[in-house]
Amino acid sequence: MEVLQILHMNKGNGETSYAQNSKFQEKILSIAKPIVDEAVQKLLCSNIAPIGSMGIADLGCSSGPNTFLLISEIIDAIRATRRSSSSFTEFRVFLNDLFSNDFNTVFMSLPAFYNQLKEEHGAGLGSFFVSATPGSFYGRLFPAKSLHFVHSCSSLHWLSQVPYGLDLQAAAKALNKGKIWISKTSPQCVLDAYSFQFHKDFSLFLKSRAEEIIGGGRMVLSLPGRSSSDPSTPECCYQWDLLAHALMTMVSEGLIEEEKVDSFNLPYYVPSEEELKMELEKEGSFIIDRLEAFEIDWDGGAEISVVASGQRVAKTIRAVVESMIESHFGNDIMDDLFRRYAELVADHFSKSRTKLLNLVLSTGLT
Amino acid sequence: MEVLQILHMNKGNGETSYAQNSKFQEKILSIAKPIVDEAVQKLLCSNIAPIGSMGIADLGCSSGPNTFLLISEIIDAIRATRRSSSSFTEFRVFLNDLFSNDFNTVFMSLPAFYNQLKEEHGAGLGSFFVSATPGSFYGRLFPAKSLHFVHSCSSLHWLSQVPYGLDLQAAAKALNKGKIWISKTSPQCVLDAYSFQFHKDFSLFLKSRAEEIIGGGRMVLSLPGRSSSDPSTPECCYQWDLLAHALMTMVSEGLIEEEKVDSFNLPYYVPSEEELKMELEKEGSFIIDRLEAFEIDWDGGAEISVVASGQRVAKTIRAVVESMIESHFGNDIMDDLFRRYAELVADHFSKSRTKLLNLVLSTGLT
Repeated sequence: MEVLQILHMNKGNGETSYAQNSKFQEKILSIAKPIVDEAVQKLLCSNIAPIGSMGIADLGCSSGPNTFLLISEIIDAIRATRRSSSSFTEFRVFLNDLFSNDFNTVFMSLPAFYNQLKEEHGAGLGSFFVSATPGSFYGRLFPAKSLHFVHSCSSLHWLSQVPYGLDLQAAAKALNKGKIWISKTSPQCVLDAYSFQFHKDFSLFLKSRAEEIIGGGRMVLSLPGRSSSDPSTPECCYQWDLLAHALMTMVSEGLIEEEKVDSFNLPYYVPSEEELKMELEKEGSFIIDRLEAFEIDWDGGAEISVVASGQRVAKTIRAVVESMIESHFGNDIMDDLFRRYAELVADHFSKSRTKLLNLVLSTGLT
Repeated sequence: MEVLQILHMNKGNGETSYAQNSKFQEKILSIAKPIVDEAVQKLLCSNIAPIGSMGIADLGCSSGPNTFLLISEIIDAIRATRRSSSSFTEFRVFLNDLFSNDFNTVFMSLPAFYNQLKEEHGAGLGSFFVSATPGSFYGRLFPAKSLHFVHSCSSLHWLSQVPYGLDLQAAAKALNKGKIWISKTSPQCVLDAYSFQFHKDFSLFLKSRAEEIIGGGRMVLSLPGRSSSDPSTPECCYQWDLLAHALMTMVSEGLIEEEKVDSFNLPYYVPSEEELKMELEKEGSFIIDRLEAFEIDWDGGAEISVVASGQRVAKTIRAVVESMIESHFGNDIMDDLFRRYAELVADHFSKSRTKLLNLVLSTGLT
């Protein structure tokens, strides 16, 4: 699977779109808001060298209301700080996501967003220049020393590729039989392959950002994390166990070939705090200003029935993973698969919680 | 009509897409190639102050093969010049078009383009960072003094809006009855409204670019122009007279309301060399390095039948204006309208030629 070309949140504004099914990620953004605020304020109050205009990048911006929520948060933080001091009057905002992200939908909302900015803030705030930079953040995206503030929310748990050996070879060797991610039944080599891929990817992410961020710049990362040292713990893998189970019921009914399930593994990883810290220390470019863990309900904590809650969670996950599942299994089975998944989630998972890690990193003032 | 939100070249890669029907514009790009080459080479050999990385913008990039053709041209020019001297190792390429341009299709072609770059040029060429900046070039798009080279091909003849008074009021007053652009039957006030809008737009274009381009930077503009001082000369208005005629035959058959035609006027203008020079002088930020006129066949000069030629021209024009016509007249009549138009063009227009103006402008080394 060519992850970098296939992976995208569901496009447009329809019923199964990410735009309509991203309340969970919105919740994560709102939890991280005070952390983003503080990081932007510290940045603007520091003696950072202005390089003409302030460079801001959102890595994994997706499409839909969340894309603009983050820019709004940053603008609010800038506005709150400008009362004290800042030499910036121009802001370059770069929205990044993979090549197949629905930037058309993002751009169609830009005129309304610019108008809203004008109404809320007037002319005094400075000029905002919004661009999109498509590509993988596991590699360079921007010129050297061109960014002051980098943000990435609900994105870094997606790997650059399915770990080596877990694509077609996995099926041939029946390595991760009947599963689509790490599971209790996965052999150690599957866990190792995932862990290796995450460390390789995260290290490249840090190295690339270190080259792009100016001395004294800041980066806020929000991503799911795990409490246990064991990645096959239910808190991490239960949602994918259930999706694999839904796929396997379709195998048993002859709707999907079993080999198709065996050869599919998600390019996904949930690190522990220790893994993140270790990798940051090893790479060496960033200092951890702040590292906090939160817990968040999968269904957003709303007071709704288990069935409604199951449907909501299934829709959230469908909006995120459908591009990859569809590319592997074909479009025909999607509705059936996610109907089954919603039922399984309602019975077993909808009231679960997930752990969220928020990190604030800064570079030295070199 | 909200031109800035509606106007876009036909999306995707289908039969009526701009990607499949932009040979005419490709021809214009190829005519301008030596001019772009020379401008880039002069720029790189000048004593221009590097600001970290070289900023390049293509204004009105559209979607399809032409989008990448221009970047390729610039890269070739850079490559040819690098043998002599240049201090740039990083290149920021900004693709600009209006908010509804099909950037998704552009981005999906980017991985193949990056691979091609690597194969053709290896690692020695430097790093290219391609972004998209959606918005109107009749206003600021980029931070101050952030660009070195600006290019705009086949775009500046589109105005920011239908000239004031030529929208609904035109119909009420029957100002431009049965026409959709300047025509021999148009009263002077219609010509004046168009001329006023062009001067206002072009002046704002120059002012905005003057703020964005670094001292010593260069800009290459290619746009259709007219030889006559009279904008209602057939060389300019005959293509739109025929489209208006096709619409009016549909009015006579009860397929379109006449009022709809009377209230539609294209946001389009074809300046003369003198008008361009006058506006450049008045605005004062740019020096004309080079101004040349070319003639180009509407059907690309191919040896094909008049009928095939008519169809080709009609498809070219459909791919460009359909977004605006569809937004005003509705989707239902499109196929019928452009079938009629192709026949009219075959009979009257397909072997016509249009004048193309190429300008190279530079800013002083301040």
